[in-house]
Formats: sequence, C-alpha cells, structure tokens
Amino acid sequence: MKISNRVLNMNFSPIRKLVPFANDAKKRGIKVYSMNIGQPNVVTPDSFFQGLTNYNEKIVKYSDSQGISILINSFIESYKNWNIDLSEDEILITQGGSEAILFSLMAICDPGDEVLVPEPFYSNYNSFTKVAGAKIVPFSTKIEHGFHLPPKEEIVKKITDKTRCILFSNPANPTGTIYTHDELKMLADIAKEHDLYLISDEVYRQFVYDDIEYTSCMYIEDVLDRVILVDSISKHYSACGARIGLVASKNKTLINQMLKLCQSRLCVSTIEQCAASNLINTLGSYLEDVKTKYKARRNLMCEYLSKIPGVVFNKPSGAFYILAELPVDDTEKFAEWLLTDYNYENKTVMIAPGSGFYGTDGLGKKEVRLSFCTSIEDIENSMIVLTHALKDYNALNLKK
Amino acid sequence: MKISNRVLNMNFSPIRKLVPFANDAKKRGIKVYSMNIGQPNVVTPDSFFQGLTNYNEKIVKYSDSQGISILINSFIESYKNWNIDLSEDEILITQGGSEAILFSLMAICDPGDEVLVPEPFYSNYNSFTKVAGAKIVPFSTKIEHGFHLPPKEEIVKKITDKTRCILFSNPANPTGTIYTHDELKMLADIAKEHDLYLISDEVYRQFVYDDIEYTSCMYIEDVLDRVILVDSISKHYSACGARIGLVASKNKTLINQMLKLCQSRLCVSTIEQCAASNLINTLGSYLEDVKTKYKARRNLMCEYLSKIPGVVFNKPSGAFYILAELPVDDTEKFAEWLLTDYNYENKTVMIAPGSGFYGTDGLGKKEVRLSFCTSIEDIENSMIVLTHALKDYNALNLKK
Repeated sequence: MKISNRVLNMNFSPIRKLVPFANDAKKRGIKVYSMNIGQPNVVTPDSFFQGLTNYNEKIVKYSDSQGISILINSFIESYKNWNIDLSEDEILITQGGSEAILFSLMAICDPGDEVLVPEPFYSNYNSFTKVAGAKIVPFSTKIEHGFHLPPKEEIVKKITDKTRCILFSNPANPTGTIYTHDELKMLADIAKEHDLYLISDEVYRQFVYDDIEYTSCMYIEDVLDRVILVDSISKHYSACGARIGLVASKNKTLINQMLKLCQSRLCVSTIEQCAASNLINTLGSYLEDVKTKYKARRNLMCEYLSKIPGVVFNKPSGAFYILAELPVDDTEKFAEWLLTDYNYENKTVMIAPGSGFYGTDGLGKKEVRLSFCTSIEDIENSMIVLTHALKDYNALNLKK
Repeated sequence: MKISNRVLNMNFSPIRKLVPFANDAKKRGIKVYSMNIGQPNVVTPDSFFQGLTNYNEKIVKYSDSQGISILINSFIESYKNWNIDLSEDEILITQGGSEAILFSLMAICDPGDEVLVPEPFYSNYNSFTKVAGAKIVPFSTKIEHGFHLPPKEEIVKKITDKTRCILFSNPANPTGTIYTHDELKMLADIAKEHDLYLISDEVYRQFVYDDIEYTSCMYIEDVLDRVILVDSISKHYSACGARIGLVASKNKTLINQMLKLCQSRLCVSTIEQCAASNLINTLGSYLEDVKTKYKARRNLMCEYLSKIPGVVFNKPSGAFYILAELPVDDTEKFAEWLLTDYNYENKTVMIAPGSGFYGTDGLGKKEVRLSFCTSIEDIENSMIVLTHALKDYNALNLKK
C-alpha cells in the first residue's frame, strides 16, 4: 500500500529513538533526568484553570474558525505592553504555535518552494515545511558567534526564485540567542529586496534575561506587510498541553486567505480558548516570577557547564535552552551511551543530540541541547551526572 | 506578496457569504432559524464536564503525540459494542474528525493524486484534499436513488493511476444515507482490485434510525489493511468544540507513518482528552435518548417537507441532515433572498445551498441541506417559514 512521499520523507521526532533506552534505564532502577525536553515544570497560572471552570454552557459548541473574540482581544491587549499594535482582523487563533507555523507555510509556499532558516533551528520546522511540500534551505549560525546571524551576503546567496520566506525563532530555540535590532533590520532588508515573508516565531518572547533589548519583528515598520508573527501560550504560561497559539499579520489579505485553513479544521477547542482568555487575569508578577526562576536556572546550568573541561557554550540571553558543544565526537552515540551503559550514583541524563537541529548534514554532531525549564534540583543533579559522564566516557574511549 | 496556489484554490466555507445577510436580518429584528448548521442543540454529557474538572495536575503538560492511553483505550472499549476490534497501536487521537481526514489524505496522497468521493459530500473534503495537494474526483449519487451508490462500472471508470483512495461518510453527510453491506462490499472490491485505500468517515455512526442494519467499513475483513476509520466525539456526544477525534487502521505501517504528522503538532489538547476519556462514564441511555430525539425531529421535518408542493427528498436513515430538492431554479439565490428580502411573521430561515456539497459544476443547484439537530420548536417554525417562503418566492417569480 502506498504511503505518500511527503510522510515518508518526514522524520520521527529525533528524541524518539532514545525513548526506549530511557524506559529501559528506568526499568533498571536508574533515575533519568530529562534535559532534552521543552516541558516547563513551572505551574500553569490559576487563572487558566479558573477559565476552564468559567465555561458555563451546557453544550461544547463549535467556536468561530478565527478564534473567539474575547481571546483575540486579550492577545491584542497584551501586545500593547510590547508596543505591538494589532486589530481583530489581523489575528487567527491556532492549535498552538505549531499550527500557526504550519498554516503560515501552507499559505505562502507551494510544493517545491524554499524556506530560508538560520540553523540550528527547532526541529519541527522540518516537519511543517515538508507537510507544506516545501524545502528548508538552511544558512548557518555558529557557536563561536553566539549563534548570531551571518553577514547579509551569506544569507542572500542562498536565495533562489523559489524562496518564499525566512523562518526563524527569536528568542531562538535551541540556542537562546536573541537577535539584535540590526540583525532584524538586515532580515527585513533582505525580505524587501527579494520579496520574501518573514515568519517570526516569538513563542519565547517573555523570556529575555539580563536587560537585553528585545526587538520583535513587528517593530520593523517598513516590512509589516511581510511579517507573520507566531505566538503561543505554551511556554509563556506553561500551558503546552492547551494547544492555544496564534498567527498575526498586518497583511490582512494573507490573514483572510489563511482563514480558509482555519475553516477547514472548523475551530480550536472552545473551552481551552475560554481558559486562555482568562490568562489576562493572571497576576502581573507571574511572568516576572517565571523569568526570575529561569534566569536562576540558567545561571546555575552555566556555572556547572563552565567547569566541565572541553565544553563550549554561550550563556543564552533568552528562552530556556543551551546549545552546548561537548568534548565528544558524536553526541548521538554519547546520548545513547548515557542511557544504555552509564549511571552515576544510579542517575543518568537524557539529552537532545545537536544534529537534530541542523538542516546541513554533519553539523551539530558535537552539540547537545540542554533545557533549563526543569527544577533547580534536577538541573543540579543532571549537571553533576553530565560532568562525571563526560570524564568517564572519554576515559573509556582513551582506553580503546 | 505571493499567496500559495494551494490556499488561493481553496474555497471559503460556502455558508460564509450568507452570514452577513443573516446578521443584517437579525439587526432588522427578524428571527433567523439556522437550518444550515451541524451544531446540535443537545446537551453534552455531564461526564465530559466532570472529566474536565478531574484534571488535577498543576501544569497543563504536553501529552503523548499519539494521544493519551486512557482515551485510546476508552475508544477501544466502545468499539467492542460495534464488533470492531482495535488495539492501541492502531489508533491515533486527532484534533477532531477534521484532522483525522486531513492526516489520512496527507499520509496517502502526494500532490496531483486523486481522491474518489461520492457526491454530494461534506464540503470540507474539498479543503482537506486541496491542503494535501490532491484532487477530488467525484462520482455522482442521485436523489432518485436515495443517494445510494451507482453501479460499480460508474465508479471504476473514474479510476486512474493517480487514484489513491475512496473517501466517504457513512452515515452520509449531507444526505443521511446509510450504505448497505453490498455497497460497502462493492467499494471494498474496487479498493482491492485497484489498490486503493478506503477512508470511512463514521462520525455519525451512532445515529442510525428505523432499525436499519449498519455496516462499518471495519466489518469487511479482507480489506482491513486498506480501511482508514475516521471517528469523533463531536456529533455523538454533542461536543463539537472539544476537537477530539481519531483515526484508526489495522494497517499499522500506515498508523506508524501518520504518527509523524501527530508528532509535528506535538499533541492534542491534554485536558480535552481527559474530559473525552470520561465519556466512557456517560449513562448508556444518553446515546439512545439522543437518537430518539433526532428520530422524532427527522420525522417532524419529513412530515412538513412532504406537504410542500414540489419538494423532493428521501427520509434519511442516519445522521441529522436532509438533502432536499426545492421547486426553485437556484437555491443559492433563494437562500440569499430568504435573508435579504423575506420574512414570515418576522421569521426567516438560513439554509445551506446544495451546490456547496458537489464537486461537479452545476449539480445540486435545486437542492438544500436542512439540519434537524436543532430543537423541535425551531424545526417547526422553520418549516412553516419555508413552506410560505417557497409559495411566495414562486408567486413573485411568476409575476416577473
């Protein structure tokens, strides 16, 4: 029976092959610290749960395909704090940031079209692009430059007549890099000069540390008709399982056309939208508290990492990941070994090999993504394990 | 700025252009009965709402991309009542039946592939097919044959080397027709002989009236590797806004490949899945009560329709729609006139023109889909309005 090439060409989640090994380790009584995940351990605001119980209809009805008005307007309100001005007809509520990116690509790419992406990038960008029949064309950012963007000519030389957009996350997953105003201006210039859209995935926007100035793509006024903003409550409000995101653009024609995609799946879960609407009643201190927590966790992780010989990394300015280079040849093998062959005081760690975040074959082989959205205790334990594991792994390999 | 051909070629919901007219009528103080909708007025079971509050985690976490095990197993249990035997690795939970159909098409069709569909059909099949880059090839069923399937040769002659599947709903939306065992056997034979999948959209399976024997596509044993079952809680439990559906197949390779699509959107709303899991605790009488209600509503609507001169229709055996032929030339014009120019005792009706349910240009122009999932009172009032409106509309046109 035929399976579509589209789906055959898609990859399973890069972590997936590690899961059975992790399960086996757990069965052997080993505590596995999951440093690979983007699932925060921070509690979801009470306001979300209150919003759930506020739903007092007797029927769980379809809602509007665009999203419920109260939720759209609560996003509009919250954007005012960011000096982003949006109106109701410039926003579509989506099933998480995932659907927002997928619909964006669907609406601008036809099969064979190309999507420019700075690598390393969030690995599901591969899936969304393949589902849309398009192709990722990566341009590299380097650990030694803090994963900041390369010079303009490096990006421009990748553009063909099939290129439709530049897709990027800012703050970036998996690097935690925050692009400067100049970098965004450069992307905007490229977009204008080559008639491209800019898909700006800002789902970590709230998590910017050290008073670094954040520039949203929505600040670059002369390309606003080209900017597609992707947002989500998943990370900001630790509500990943709610599946509430949005796509926004000042390009109303585009939003109106994307509404067809929204209509095809009828609506986003009505009750989750109600609950998300109530997030506007979250204590203002919630986000500050979360940011303070993540900052402390980041500092702790960086402190440990900086003491491990041979580990190269940048202290991330945003999000909650560190993409670190480890003193091993192949982090895929190392990640597997950690689960199958290693434990330190009956503990081990699960890490995300870096190659899964690159589009260019062979890149990222020495890197891993470490998440610091877990608890202080877990970070501490996992860093101790990692420190010992690297020493033991390399000692083993020297002997061979 | 370029918009993809995929999206440009998609249609807005066929009802969409009537919505502003309906809103205007309401502003003029006219009561508009929405006979166009598939939103039941039946209450959602308490067990669903209890399931919502049962969620007692402090964090709304991602759930497994496949779906939560307790929900999958509650579906497996419920299928036993239908003599359908499924295991956990044969089911994926989806964001409503919509995503189930979309993922099915995505997984078996590449751009340019063809999807055979008996027309009239649920209009969103157009959208799903276009999103997958494929093309609907309709074969016609006729009102005079109760919208039952045409002879085998009529279907087979539409098959090309690009045909990948036959997609159909059973009970059928918009006709309420239930295919016989022989019809399904014929489809199965065609599928076997021409190496096709059968996507069986059974989201109205619970609503079969008059003791008619229901045959699920999952009963045809020798094609089980070709059958993709689409299901949803939306209609059965009046929980359209929950967005919980599933796709199931005994073809585990296909299910495993489709899991990539599930992984790309991470998960289905965790809390809605918990709530849906609790539907297994719904009183057994709930579904019987709902069916009894719909049967009475159907009978009432049929009684009224049978008294309107020139109206042709079949008493539907399932679902909650009647596709009726009206004594007018163009139901699109008539539907608009009802909202813009007509009222009977300050009331009017909104109907879904038939052409939106056909793939072949020009078909269905005299037909409308009427939904009987609204209240007895609404059905009564709308039928009275429709009776008068048809008389008045034709009197007007005679004068012209």
